[in-house]
Amino acid sequence: MRVLGIDPGLRNLGWGVIEMTGSRLTHVANGIIHSEGDDLALRLLSLHQGLTLVIAQHAPDAAAVEQTFVNKDAVATLKLGQARGVAMLVPAQAGLAVGEYAPNAVKKAVVGVGHADKAQVQHMVRFQLPGVDLAGADAADALAVAICHAHHLQSATRLARAMGGAA
Amino acid sequence: MRVLGIDPGLRNLGWGVIEMTGSRLTHVANGIIHSEGDDLALRLLSLHQGLTLVIAQHAPDAAAVEQTFVNKDAVATLKLGQARGVAMLVPAQAGLAVGEYAPNAVKKAVVGVGHADKAQVQHMVRFQLPGVDLAGADAADALAVAICHAHHLQSATRLARAMGGAA
Repeated sequence: MRVLGIDPGLRNLGWGVIEMTGSRLTHVANGIIHSEGDDLALRLLSLHQGLTLVIAQHAPDAAAVEQTFVNKDAVATLKLGQARGVAMLVPAQAGLAVGEYAPNAVKKAVVGVGHADKAQVQHMVRFQLPGVDLAGADAADALAVAICHAHHLQSATRLARAMGGAA
Repeated sequence: MRVLGIDPGLRNLGWGVIEMTGSRLTHVANGIIHSEGDDLALRLLSLHQGLTLVIAQHAPDAAAVEQTFVNKDAVATLKLGQARGVAMLVPAQAGLAVGEYAPNAVKKAVVGVGHADKAQVQHMVRFQLPGVDLAGADAADALAVAICHAHHLQSATRLARAMGGAA
Protein backbone atom coordinates (compact mmCIF):
# COMPACT_ATOMS: atom_id res chain seq x y z
CA MET A 1 0.00 0.00 0.00
CA ARG A 2 1.34 3.41 -0.99
CA VAL A 3 0.87 6.42 1.25
CA LEU A 4 1.23 10.05 0.16
CA GLY A 5 2.07 12.68 2.79
CA ILE A 6 1.67 16.39 2.10
CA ASP A 7 3.08 19.40 3.97
CA PRO A 8 1.07 22.26 2.46
CA GLY A 9 2.44 25.74 1.82
CA LEU A 10 1.58 28.39 -0.76
CA ARG A 11 5.19 28.94 -1.82
CA ASN A 12 6.61 25.45 -1.18
CA LEU A 13 4.42 22.38 -0.95
CA GLY A 14 6.30 19.31 0.30
CA TRP A 15 5.23 15.79 -0.71
CA GLY A 16 6.49 12.30 0.03
CA VAL A 17 5.38 8.79 -0.97
CA ILE A 18 6.20 5.64 0.99
CA GLU A 19 5.38 1.97 0.48
CA MET A 20 3.92 0.06 3.42
CA THR A 21 4.36 -3.74 3.32
CA GLY A 22 2.99 -5.15 6.58
CA SER A 23 4.92 -3.22 9.20
CA ARG A 24 7.81 -2.41 6.83
CA LEU A 25 8.08 1.08 5.34
CA THR A 26 10.20 1.98 2.31
CA HIS A 27 10.77 5.26 0.54
CA VAL A 28 9.30 5.73 -2.95
CA ALA A 29 9.78 9.41 -3.79
CA ASN A 30 9.70 12.90 -2.32
CA GLY A 31 9.84 16.45 -3.59
CA ILE A 32 8.79 20.06 -3.27
CA ILE A 33 6.36 21.86 -5.57
CA HIS A 34 7.25 25.54 -5.88
CA SER A 35 4.75 28.19 -6.92
CA GLU A 36 5.93 31.56 -8.15
CA GLY A 37 4.56 34.97 -9.05
CA ASP A 38 2.18 37.52 -7.53
CA ASP A 39 -1.01 36.04 -8.94
CA LEU A 40 -2.57 33.92 -6.20
CA ALA A 41 -4.92 32.02 -8.52
CA LEU A 42 -2.03 31.02 -10.81
CA ARG A 43 0.03 29.90 -7.82
CA LEU A 44 -2.81 27.70 -6.60
CA LEU A 45 -3.16 26.38 -10.15
CA SER A 46 0.52 25.42 -10.29
CA LEU A 47 0.25 23.64 -6.91
CA HIS A 48 -2.82 21.78 -8.23
CA GLN A 49 -1.06 20.76 -11.44
CA GLY A 50 2.10 19.67 -9.60
CA LEU A 51 0.26 17.58 -7.03
CA THR A 52 -1.98 16.03 -9.69
CA LEU A 53 1.18 14.94 -11.53
CA VAL A 54 2.68 13.45 -8.34
CA ILE A 55 -0.45 11.34 -7.79
CA ALA A 56 -0.51 10.25 -11.45
CA GLN A 57 3.18 9.24 -11.32
CA HIS A 58 3.24 7.46 -7.96
CA ALA A 59 -0.36 6.15 -7.65
CA PRO A 60 -0.79 6.32 -3.87
CA ASP A 61 -3.63 4.36 -2.20
CA ALA A 62 -4.03 6.77 0.73
CA ALA A 63 -3.10 10.35 1.54
CA ALA A 64 -2.65 12.56 4.58
CA VAL A 65 -2.10 16.29 5.04
CA GLU A 66 -0.49 18.09 7.94
CA GLN A 67 -2.89 20.32 9.86
CA THR A 68 -1.52 23.75 9.22
CA PHE A 69 -0.14 25.49 12.26
CA VAL A 70 -2.62 28.17 13.25
CA ASN A 71 -0.50 31.03 14.45
CA LYS A 72 -1.42 34.56 15.44
CA ASP A 73 -0.77 35.95 11.96
CA ALA A 74 -4.21 35.85 10.31
CA VAL A 75 -2.88 36.77 6.85
CA ALA A 76 -0.35 33.91 6.97
CA THR A 77 -3.06 31.54 8.23
CA LEU A 78 -5.32 32.55 5.31
CA LYS A 79 -2.51 31.91 2.79
CA LEU A 80 -1.74 28.52 4.30
CA GLY A 81 -5.46 27.73 4.29
CA GLN A 82 -5.64 28.42 0.56
CA ALA A 83 -2.70 26.10 -0.18
CA ARG A 84 -4.13 23.50 2.19
CA GLY A 85 -7.49 23.62 0.40
CA VAL A 86 -5.76 22.64 -2.84
CA ALA A 87 -3.60 20.03 -1.05
CA MET A 88 -6.71 18.27 0.27
CA LEU A 89 -8.69 18.67 -2.94
CA VAL A 90 -6.27 16.90 -5.28
CA PRO A 91 -6.17 13.49 -3.50
CA ALA A 92 -9.97 13.70 -3.03
CA GLN A 93 -10.30 14.22 -6.80
CA ALA A 94 -8.25 11.03 -7.26
CA GLY A 95 -10.73 9.16 -5.05
CA LEU A 96 -8.35 8.89 -2.06
CA ALA A 97 -9.42 9.26 1.56
CA VAL A 98 -7.44 12.13 3.07
CA GLY A 99 -6.21 11.91 6.67
CA GLU A 100 -5.32 14.95 8.74
CA TYR A 101 -2.70 15.11 11.48
CA ALA A 102 -1.62 17.89 13.79
CA PRO A 103 2.13 18.70 13.67
CA ASN A 104 2.58 17.35 17.21
CA ALA A 105 0.92 14.04 16.28
CA VAL A 106 3.28 13.73 13.29
CA LYS A 107 6.36 14.45 15.43
CA LYS A 108 5.22 12.02 18.09
CA ALA A 109 4.72 9.26 15.49
CA VAL A 110 8.13 9.82 13.87
CA VAL A 111 10.40 11.03 16.67
CA GLY A 112 8.52 9.78 19.73
CA VAL A 113 7.90 13.20 21.26
CA GLY A 114 5.51 15.95 20.18
CA HIS A 115 7.95 18.81 20.49
CA ALA A 116 10.78 17.64 18.25
CA ASP A 117 12.57 20.20 16.07
CA LYS A 118 13.02 20.01 12.29
CA ALA A 119 16.49 18.47 12.53
CA GLN A 120 15.19 15.63 14.73
CA VAL A 121 12.33 14.98 12.30
CA GLN A 122 14.74 14.82 9.35
CA HIS A 123 17.09 12.52 11.28
CA MET A 124 14.29 10.09 12.13
CA VAL A 125 12.82 10.21 8.61
CA ARG A 126 16.29 9.21 7.27
CA PHE A 127 16.53 6.49 9.94
CA GLN A 128 13.10 5.02 9.17
CA LEU A 129 13.50 5.27 5.38
CA PRO A 130 17.12 4.12 4.79
CA GLY A 131 18.77 5.56 1.70
CA VAL A 132 16.24 8.36 1.29
CA ASP A 133 17.50 11.49 -0.47
CA LEU A 134 15.49 14.41 0.94
CA ALA A 135 14.51 17.23 -1.43
CA GLY A 136 14.35 19.60 1.53
CA ALA A 137 12.78 20.29 4.93
CA ASP A 138 9.22 20.49 3.52
CA ALA A 139 9.68 17.14 1.77
CA ALA A 140 11.00 15.61 5.03
CA ASP A 141 7.92 16.92 6.85
CA ALA A 142 5.70 15.43 4.15
CA LEU A 143 7.41 12.01 4.51
CA ALA A 144 6.90 12.31 8.28
CA VAL A 145 3.16 12.85 7.65
CA ALA A 146 3.14 9.76 5.41
CA ILE A 147 4.93 7.70 8.14
CA CYS A 148 2.43 8.95 10.73
CA HIS A 149 -0.49 7.96 8.50
CA ALA A 150 1.08 4.54 7.79
CA HIS A 151 1.38 3.89 11.55
CA HIS A 152 -2.26 4.89 11.95
CA LEU A 153 -3.34 2.54 9.13
CA GLN A 154 -1.22 -0.32 10.58
CA SER A 155 -2.87 0.13 13.99
CA ALA A 156 -6.30 0.10 12.37
CA THR A 157 -5.37 -3.11 10.52
CA ARG A 158 -4.11 -4.79 13.69
CA LEU A 159 -7.26 -3.74 15.52
CA ALA A 160 -9.42 -5.17 12.75
CA ARG A 161 -7.48 -8.49 12.96
CA ALA A 162 -7.78 -8.58 16.75
CA MET A 163 -11.52 -8.01 16.41
CA GLY A 164 -11.70 -10.98 14.03
CA GLY A 165 -12.44 -8.90 10.94
CA ALA A 166 -10.72 -9.00 7.60
CA ALA A 167 -7.63 -6.79 7.31
CA MET B 1 -18.74 40.11 -21.42
CA ARG B 2 -19.79 37.83 -18.60
CA VAL B 3 -18.42 38.29 -15.09
CA LEU B 4 -18.52 35.67 -12.32
CA GLY B 5 -18.42 36.83 -8.71
CA ILE B 6 -17.67 34.42 -5.85
CA ASP B 7 -18.23 34.82 -2.11
CA PRO B 8 -16.24 31.87 -0.73
CA GLY B 9 -17.24 29.86 2.32
CA LEU B 10 -16.63 26.24 3.32
CA ARG B 11 -20.29 25.53 4.12
CA ASN B 12 -21.97 27.93 1.67
CA LEU B 13 -20.20 29.30 -1.39
CA GLY B 14 -22.16 32.09 -3.09
CA TRP B 15 -21.81 32.72 -6.82
CA GLY B 16 -23.33 35.18 -9.27
CA VAL B 17 -22.95 35.82 -13.00
CA ILE B 18 -23.74 39.14 -14.70
CA GLU B 19 -23.55 40.32 -18.31
CA MET B 20 -21.76 43.59 -19.00
CA THR B 21 -22.72 45.37 -22.25
CA GLY B 22 -20.88 48.68 -22.34
CA SER B 23 -21.91 50.30 -19.06
CA ARG B 24 -25.11 48.26 -18.78
CA LEU B 25 -25.22 45.33 -16.35
CA THR B 26 -27.81 42.56 -16.43
CA HIS B 27 -28.32 39.53 -14.23
CA VAL B 28 -27.59 36.08 -15.68
CA ALA B 29 -27.74 33.67 -12.74
CA ASN B 30 -26.88 33.29 -9.06
CA GLY B 31 -26.82 30.52 -6.51
CA ILE B 32 -25.25 28.96 -3.45
CA ILE B 33 -23.17 25.78 -3.43
CA HIS B 34 -23.62 23.89 -0.17
CA SER B 35 -21.07 21.40 1.13
CA GLU B 36 -22.04 18.89 3.77
CA GLY B 37 -20.46 16.31 6.05
CA ASP B 38 -17.49 16.10 8.40
CA ASP B 39 -14.89 15.14 5.78
CA LEU B 40 -13.07 18.33 4.82
CA ALA B 41 -11.56 16.91 1.62
CA LEU B 42 -14.97 15.77 0.38
CA ARG B 43 -16.47 19.17 1.18
CA LEU B 44 -13.75 20.91 -0.83
CA LEU B 45 -14.36 18.39 -3.63
CA SER B 46 -18.08 19.21 -3.71
CA LEU B 47 -17.30 22.97 -3.83
CA HIS B 48 -14.88 22.29 -6.70
CA GLN B 49 -17.42 20.21 -8.63
CA GLY B 50 -20.22 22.74 -8.06
CA LEU B 51 -18.16 25.73 -9.15
CA THR B 52 -16.77 23.84 -12.17
CA LEU B 53 -20.39 23.17 -13.22
CA VAL B 54 -21.33 26.86 -12.79
CA ILE B 55 -18.48 27.91 -15.08
CA ALA B 56 -19.37 25.24 -17.64
CA GLN B 57 -23.03 26.32 -17.66
CA HIS B 58 -22.58 30.09 -17.71
CA ALA B 59 -19.23 30.51 -19.51
CA PRO B 60 -17.95 33.67 -17.79
CA ASP B 61 -15.10 35.67 -19.38
CA ALA B 62 -13.75 37.03 -16.09
CA ALA B 63 -13.99 36.16 -12.42
CA ALA B 64 -13.47 37.83 -9.05
CA VAL B 65 -13.40 36.54 -5.48
CA GLU B 66 -14.10 38.42 -2.27
CA GLN B 67 -11.06 38.70 -0.02
CA THR B 68 -12.05 36.69 2.98
CA PHE B 69 -12.51 38.68 6.14
CA VAL B 70 -9.54 37.96 8.36
CA ASN B 71 -10.93 37.92 11.87
CA LYS B 72 -9.35 36.99 15.16
CA ASP B 73 -10.55 33.39 14.99
CA ALA B 74 -7.61 31.54 13.40
CA VAL B 75 -9.55 28.27 12.98
CA ALA B 76 -12.33 30.08 11.10
CA THR B 77 -9.75 31.94 8.99
CA LEU B 78 -8.07 28.63 8.08
CA LYS B 79 -11.44 27.12 7.03
CA LEU B 80 -12.29 30.15 4.92
CA GLY B 81 -8.81 30.02 3.40
CA GLN B 82 -9.36 26.42 2.33
CA ALA B 83 -12.66 27.27 0.63
CA ARG B 84 -11.11 30.38 -0.90
CA GLY B 85 -8.24 28.33 -2.33
CA VAL B 86 -10.75 26.18 -4.23
CA ALA B 87 -12.78 29.28 -5.24
CA MET B 88 -9.71 30.85 -6.86
CA LEU B 89 -8.45 27.59 -8.37
CA VAL B 90 -11.55 26.71 -10.41
CA PRO B 91 -11.70 29.88 -12.58
CA ALA B 92 -7.91 29.70 -13.03
CA GLN B 93 -8.35 26.12 -14.30
CA ALA B 94 -10.85 27.51 -16.83
CA GLY B 95 -8.22 30.00 -18.02
CA LEU B 96 -9.90 33.04 -16.42
CA ALA B 97 -8.01 35.87 -14.74
CA VAL B 98 -9.22 36.08 -11.13
CA GLY B 99 -9.66 39.49 -9.49
CA GLU B 100 -9.66 39.97 -5.73
CA TYR B 101 -11.57 42.63 -3.81
CA ALA B 102 -11.75 43.45 -0.12
CA PRO B 103 -15.29 43.47 1.35
CA ASN B 104 -15.11 47.24 1.84
CA ALA B 105 -14.18 47.80 -1.81
CA VAL B 106 -17.14 45.65 -2.90
CA LYS B 107 -19.55 47.57 -0.64
CA LYS B 108 -18.21 50.90 -1.84
CA ALA B 109 -18.66 49.88 -5.49
CA VAL B 110 -22.23 48.64 -4.97
CA VAL B 111 -23.65 50.80 -2.18
CA GLY B 112 -21.32 53.82 -2.32
CA VAL B 113 -19.96 53.45 1.20
CA GLY B 114 -17.50 50.89 2.57
CA HIS B 115 -19.40 50.09 5.74
CA ALA B 116 -22.78 49.08 4.35
CA ASP B 117 -24.65 46.21 6.02
CA LYS B 118 -25.92 43.06 4.29
CA ALA B 119 -29.44 44.46 3.82
CA GLN B 120 -28.09 47.55 2.02
CA VAL B 121 -25.93 45.36 -0.25
CA GLN B 122 -28.93 43.18 -1.15
CA HIS B 123 -31.08 46.27 -1.78
CA MET B 124 -28.51 47.80 -4.14
CA VAL B 125 -27.87 44.48 -5.93
CA ARG B 126 -31.64 44.25 -6.59
CA PHE B 127 -31.66 47.90 -7.74
CA GLN B 128 -28.72 47.46 -10.13
CA LEU B 129 -29.89 44.10 -11.48
CA PRO B 130 -33.66 44.61 -11.94
CA GLY B 131 -35.75 41.45 -11.69
CA VAL B 132 -33.02 39.44 -9.98
CA ASP B 133 -34.20 36.59 -7.76
CA LEU B 134 -31.56 36.18 -5.04
CA ALA B 135 -30.73 32.63 -3.86
CA GLY B 136 -29.62 34.08 -0.50
CA ALA B 137 -27.28 36.50 1.23
CA ASP B 138 -24.13 34.71 0.01
CA ALA B 139 -25.39 34.85 -3.59
CA ALA B 140 -26.16 38.58 -3.18
CA ASP B 141 -22.61 39.13 -1.92
CA ALA B 142 -21.26 37.20 -4.92
CA LEU B 143 -23.29 39.35 -7.35
CA ALA B 144 -21.92 42.42 -5.53
CA VAL B 145 -18.38 41.13 -6.17
CA ALA B 146 -19.26 40.64 -9.86
CA ILE B 147 -20.67 44.23 -10.06
CA CYS B 148 -17.51 45.56 -8.37
CA HIS B 149 -15.31 43.70 -10.86
CA ALA B 150 -17.45 44.93 -13.80
CA HIS B 151 -16.99 48.54 -12.64
CA HIS B 152 -13.26 47.91 -12.40
CA LEU B 153 -13.15 46.43 -15.93
CA GLN B 154 -15.27 49.33 -17.31
CA SER B 155 -12.85 51.86 -15.77
CA ALA B 156 -9.91 50.00 -17.27
CA THR B 157 -11.64 50.01 -20.67
CA ARG B 158 -12.38 53.77 -20.46
CA LEU B 159 -8.80 54.42 -19.43
CA ALA B 160 -7.50 52.37 -22.37
CA ARG B 161 -9.75 54.36 -24.76
CA ALA B 162 -8.63 57.67 -23.26
CA MET B 163 -5.04 56.57 -23.71
CA GLY B 164 -5.78 55.84 -27.37
CA GLY B 165 -5.50 52.07 -27.04
CA ALA B 166 -7.93 49.43 -28.22
CA ALA B 167 -10.68 48.53 -25.77
